[in-house]
Amino acid sequence: LSARYESLNYEISENRLYREAEKKPSHQITLWQISRNRWFVCFLIGVFTGLVAAFIDIMVHYSKDIKFNWLLKYLISKCGEEQRGTTAGCMWTVMIAWIGYNCVLVTIAAILVIFVAPIAGGSGIPQIKCYLNGIAIPEVVRLKTLVSKAIGVACSVGGGLCAGKEGPMIHSGAAVGAGISQGKSYSLGIDFGLFREFRNDRERRDFVSAGAAAGVAAAFGAPIGGVLFSLEEGASFWNQNLTWRMFFSAMISSFTVNWILSWFNGRSGWLSWTGLANFGIFENKDYNIWEIPLFLLIGVIGGCLGALFNYMNTRLTEFRKKYVSSKLGRLFECLLVAAVSGFLAFLTIFAIDDCQPIGANPTATSTQINQMWCKKGEYSAVASLFFQNPEESVKSLFHSPINSFGVTTLIIFGIEYFLLTLWTFGISVPSGVFIPALLTGAAWGRLFGILVERLFPSVTGIDPGKYALAGAAAQLGGVVRMTISLTAIIMEATKDITFGLPIMLVLMVTKWVGDMFNEGLYDSHIDLAEVPILGWNPPKMSRNILADRVMRKDVVALERRERVSRIVEILRSTLHHGFPVVDRIEESPYESLPDYGRLKGYILRSQLFKLLENRIFEEEGSSNTGLPNDFYECQDDDDQMKSLTELGLTQYDESCWLDIEPYMHPHPHRVPLNTSLPFIFRLFRGLGLRYLFVVNDDNHLRGVITRKDVARFR
Amino acid sequence: LSARYESLNYEISENRLYREAEKKPSHQITLWQISRNRWFVCFLIGVFTGLVAAFIDIMVHYSKDIKFNWLLKYLISKCGEEQRGTTAGCMWTVMIAWIGYNCVLVTIAAILVIFVAPIAGGSGIPQIKCYLNGIAIPEVVRLKTLVSKAIGVACSVGGGLCAGKEGPMIHSGAAVGAGISQGKSYSLGIDFGLFREFRNDRERRDFVSAGAAAGVAAAFGAPIGGVLFSLEEGASFWNQNLTWRMFFSAMISSFTVNWILSWFNGRSGWLSWTGLANFGIFENKDYNIWEIPLFLLIGVIGGCLGALFNYMNTRLTEFRKKYVSSKLGRLFECLLVAAVSGFLAFLTIFAIDDCQPIGANPTATSTQINQMWCKKGEYSAVASLFFQNPEESVKSLFHSPINSFGVTTLIIFGIEYFLLTLWTFGISVPSGVFIPALLTGAAWGRLFGILVERLFPSVTGIDPGKYALAGAAAQLGGVVRMTISLTAIIMEATKDITFGLPIMLVLMVTKWVGDMFNEGLYDSHIDLAEVPILGWNPPKMSRNILADRVMRKDVVALERRERVSRIVEILRSTLHHGFPVVDRIEESPYESLPDYGRLKGYILRSQLFKLLENRIFEEEGSSNTGLPNDFYECQDDDDQMKSLTELGLTQYDESCWLDIEPYMHPHPHRVPLNTSLPFIFRLFRGLGLRYLFVVNDDNHLRGVITRKDVARFR
Ligand SMILES: Nc1ncnc2c1ncn2[C@@H]1O[C@H](COP(=O)(O)OP(=O)(O)OP(=O)(O)O)[C@@H](O)[C@H]1O
Ligand SMILES: Nc1ncnc2c1ncn2[C@@H]1O[C@H](COP(=O)(O)OP(=O)(O)OP(=O)(O)O)[C@@H](O)[C@H]1O
Ligand SMILES: [Mg+2]
Ligand SMILES: [Mg+2]
Repeated sequence: LSARYESLNYEISENRLYREAEKKPSHQITLWQISRNRWFVCFLIGVFTGLVAAFIDIMVHYSKDIKFNWLLKYLISKCGEEQRGTTAGCMWTVMIAWIGYNCVLVTIAAILVIFVAPIAGGSGIPQIKCYLNGIAIPEVVRLKTLVSKAIGVACSVGGGLCAGKEGPMIHSGAAVGAGISQGKSYSLGIDFGLFREFRNDRERRDFVSAGAAAGVAAAFGAPIGGVLFSLEEGASFWNQNLTWRMFFSAMISSFTVNWILSWFNGRSGWLSWTGLANFGIFENKDYNIWEIPLFLLIGVIGGCLGALFNYMNTRLTEFRKKYVSSKLGRLFECLLVAAVSGFLAFLTIFAIDDCQPIGANPTATSTQINQMWCKKGEYSAVASLFFQNPEESVKSLFHSPINSFGVTTLIIFGIEYFLLTLWTFGISVPSGVFIPALLTGAAWGRLFGILVERLFPSVTGIDPGKYALAGAAAQLGGVVRMTISLTAIIMEATKDITFGLPIMLVLMVTKWVGDMFNEGLYDSHIDLAEVPILGWNPPKMSRNILADRVMRKDVVALERRERVSRIVEILRSTLHHGFPVVDRIEESPYESLPDYGRLKGYILRSQLFKLLENRIFEEEGSSNTGLPNDFYECQDDDDQMKSLTELGLTQYDESCWLDIEPYMHPHPHRVPLNTSLPFIFRLFRGLGLRYLFVVNDDNHLRGVITRKDVARFR
Repeated sequence: LSARYESLNYEISENRLYREAEKKPSHQITLWQISRNRWFVCFLIGVFTGLVAAFIDIMVHYSKDIKFNWLLKYLISKCGEEQRGTTAGCMWTVMIAWIGYNCVLVTIAAILVIFVAPIAGGSGIPQIKCYLNGIAIPEVVRLKTLVSKAIGVACSVGGGLCAGKEGPMIHSGAAVGAGISQGKSYSLGIDFGLFREFRNDRERRDFVSAGAAAGVAAAFGAPIGGVLFSLEEGASFWNQNLTWRMFFSAMISSFTVNWILSWFNGRSGWLSWTGLANFGIFENKDYNIWEIPLFLLIGVIGGCLGALFNYMNTRLTEFRKKYVSSKLGRLFECLLVAAVSGFLAFLTIFAIDDCQPIGANPTATSTQINQMWCKKGEYSAVASLFFQNPEESVKSLFHSPINSFGVTTLIIFGIEYFLLTLWTFGISVPSGVFIPALLTGAAWGRLFGILVERLFPSVTGIDPGKYALAGAAAQLGGVVRMTISLTAIIMEATKDITFGLPIMLVLMVTKWVGDMFNEGLYDSHIDLAEVPILGWNPPKMSRNILADRVMRKDVVALERRERVSRIVEILRSTLHHGFPVVDRIEESPYESLPDYGRLKGYILRSQLFKLLENRIFEEEGSSNTGLPNDFYECQDDDDQMKSLTELGLTQYDESCWLDIEPYMHPHPHRVPLNTSLPFIFRLFRGLGLRYLFVVNDDNHLRGVITRKDVARFR
């Protein structure tokens, strides 16, 4: 497991100051203010997440606009109306201009990721999942990450990569959540002095989950889906109040997006249209009981394809980690992917001749680019799939009349898109996998529907669009292995409940089948990054692994009264985030480990720092000066920690004594030596612990267990 | 707090046998089988819950059928066509027959509740909520409860009470969940010998939550709503796997209901129609930004009305507890409610003259009864509200054209229904509050819409049906105070996503407003019943309450090796569910309390029983005989426990020694004396604890804390 990751601190240090805070007469009011502010912050999170999502969407819109209406129109019209489709030479120019434009955008995205905020690459969902699990991934919710992610994803989607903007929107939402709740920004070095009460990991984590929910809600117009996503992928425990706030943020954010986009689309104030990814409404909502086995079959196919995708993408990521690690190499790969994506699209349009009459399909937007090699009055189905907005393509696969897409088109498009998505997910640009997976699945699902129709010509009323929907759900479910939240998201994005049941069925089967082969894509990537994540269940067959074997025995402990020099020495020489306080430490003559006394408390590294910084130490005999009252909420943020030398402790300071007792958490979690691993695991998971002390029968400290010690067992 | 309620045992007793079970080579296979069986049981739970729900629905259908088509048609036709509406005398006959029929049905329901299964009265949701919170409400998930509930609710709804069948369906689902997973029935005394591995509180509780979700899904066709309901109202912690199984059950159950009802309605195999409570689809889905304040206002009204409802119902329940406690009195009250309900309906129809032309409103079913006092070709809007199926009435309030209901009709109907619901909820018949609250709310919501239209005549496109929906949500939300799950349920029941956002807004506001006055209806009833439920958050201002003050000091403890006679004595004289095991107990000469040694373990009362029953004791020196391997899964079911005398322990037996050590849980949860109440609360809530031991600095036992000790602090 990688040592880069620290745990978030979910526990309150219930020291003297914390307890005394309650005795103040103003405490009730403070509590009320805090809870009011929580709602207010959630409101802001919703609004800003919505703004960011709308910003991304509008950016993508304009970048496509430039590409289609300006660049290509100009070039195509220069090629001359009559030559179109015949002079290949002219089309080469178009293609090169197209690819060039794409490459420029992708370069911007790649530079933002590679040189500004590396953590902004990819979809961001694995990182958010880890964060919500209680792991501090460095820089994951910084402002610079947010900016890189938002601009980057607009560029990479606008640049024609097989990438979705939904994952990055969720990540953006999480970053907004963290940023607003802290009322300051590290990246800018600004501190607005707002919401000081939320400046701790516990509160921040809650706001991040609200932000993630808001992100989902903004991306798909799916507030319930958003809440379920935050729960399914992240939250370690269900808390009703938190869930309500998550729900509120999600609601506000989809509301904001609606409002902005209804304004942007010239129908301001009309709110019924929801979400960015709107997959349209099905006209024909009937399905019959004999279609159930077909849906199950789609589930099986989706499970297998998803597992294949994950397997191949994991191998590819491993390969990348080894051989494409230099910055230039990664930039080059991004450009290569962009070029190949564009090139393949053109090649396919060249190769497949699937011209459909305009007007037969009301869902296809007949821009000029879609005409391509087709006669007047017709459009190229392939071109419409490749060049439309991916969301639009999904929509037309769902809702187009039966014969809108040829079988060859669907096969070739499906395979190409599958492979391109595979290659794209993991390169150094912000890119999600939701929409590409949905698109791939919609293609093969529609194909499946057409085949079923051909096999049973006697049955009427088979709508390939329905199978496209099932296929899309299956492919995405096979890749990410979510069930409930995905059902809710798809239902909310199609604004339809009727297909809920078959979609659920498909997703359950998909998950069962997929799980037989490997983990979900996000989990695979988390494993590759060696993050000490704690799963849902204790490791199997671990009843006989006792605390004894799990714990670390060479504990760095403190006594209740310590010389400053020893504390400085410990802070300097170790990186542990906290230290147990015992009533005595005796060097034992027989063993290498000292003999620790009774466990008395627990103090955080950051608290020690703050004590030293405020010079809360004394000569022999004198008494302590007090500390600011919010000390117990002391943050544990490495960047914030000044280095020890900056504290400027003198020789005299170092000879003083520090009385730790009033500042330590007086009843840390403890278990006896014979505790089993599943028991320990449930404690960690159920309470969101960061540490656990192991004591012997006389309550003498014997060891310490942290998240990493537990996560080591799989 | 009432002593009637015991806690459920959520923890595994990790004794020697439990640990050794893992070493068996067949353990992997057993684990696999168990997890397969879990899915299988969830499948069965879904199917049977669906069957029960469909059964209730069909019963209600037939009872209405008899009433309308047989009884009334016959009587009305006997009265003679020409006299109708003029000869009051004849209508009196009709009314008396009507009320008589209702009273017969209500009597059946009341008898089932009063004499067979008292716990089957009311909606059942509070009881399920407590059960899921970890409290064993006696008999709540028995077969006889299920039967009484299912037949009783069909009778009370068929008998024309202002009662919904949804709450009881949820309770039924929970009972099905418990029954099937245990593979046996106490009520019948049958043991099928199935699913022995699930015969413990932990597994049963999970299956009960799956059953509750399935119940919601069957009642409203809302699988996601069902899962959210189980989470919001019950589950103390979120577990992904459990949630999936809940979801699966919910899915299967709404599927089953669909299938049966599509067959019952003669369209077998057509599955798009979902759920029992189907509120129809809105044609006009637009809403505009200026309507938002109106929705907020509806939320405020709903919050106030809901709070009023809860306040009055709580007072009424207290009154009932004091003065209507005899069985006959309760039966009489039921009959009175039935008679008054019927009488009021007739009276209103007499008094209000709201005749509408047939055909203008496509949603109104024009049965003969609705004609009533109206001319031919017209129907009485009041009669249609009162005499239709309540679900149908909700539907017509949602979807009828603008002028279908007069203002007076809505006002009087709303008030009457509000009062009748108030009176009905809490009498001794199975009856839910969902549909009545929705109906009341739809009435005043529609009224609100009409008023808005009159106030702003210039604005076009105000659809009172939309406001009826908002009002229904607000009224129900004000009464039960659920947010997320209610939004999901309403969205799924109207098969529509578009109004999700305004419904959420309404529900949030409703909850805020309502919570300013009092708790939700279910919580009030739980408080009245003095159930030691643990809320979501630790009690306020409790940082300075330490374990010392929470714990019970006069602990009944055991040593690791005890004389059988002492164990028998303890079992006879105390009712505690479990006992700490310490290394020595010394009577202290100075204090009344003995001086306990170090905490070594913890053993359940039921385990001691089983040890005695199997005579696992020894003379001095001899060794133990083994115990069945599944002993660690020993159930803690009072009914199952034979009384001590039945064990037939002889004098000789009592002089033997029992070696407890191998059978106890060796590392029970413990906290030091200075632990604060919020910390303890989080342990209980986060881990689903049943006990917690308090130890001093030397790990010597000092006290015990159970759920009741914690729940005492509010
Ligand atoms: N006070 C301590 N004394 C000795 N070992 C410790 C102490 N705290 C943690 N460890 C051990 O150090 C190793 C590194 O763990 P880890 O990085 O998780 O600890 P941490 O930095 O204190 O906590 P985290 O990184 O989870 O916030 C683990 O094996 C852990 O048991
Ligand atoms: N072994 C014990 N010795 C002494 N007191 C106990 C013991 N177990 C429980 N108590 C106390 O008895 C009181 C009654 O509690 P309660 O009925 O909750 O206990 P229980 O029956 O053991 O557990 P539960 O009913 O929650 O299953 C509580 O105050 C509790 O602290
Ligand atoms: Mg560390
Ligand atoms: Mg008890």
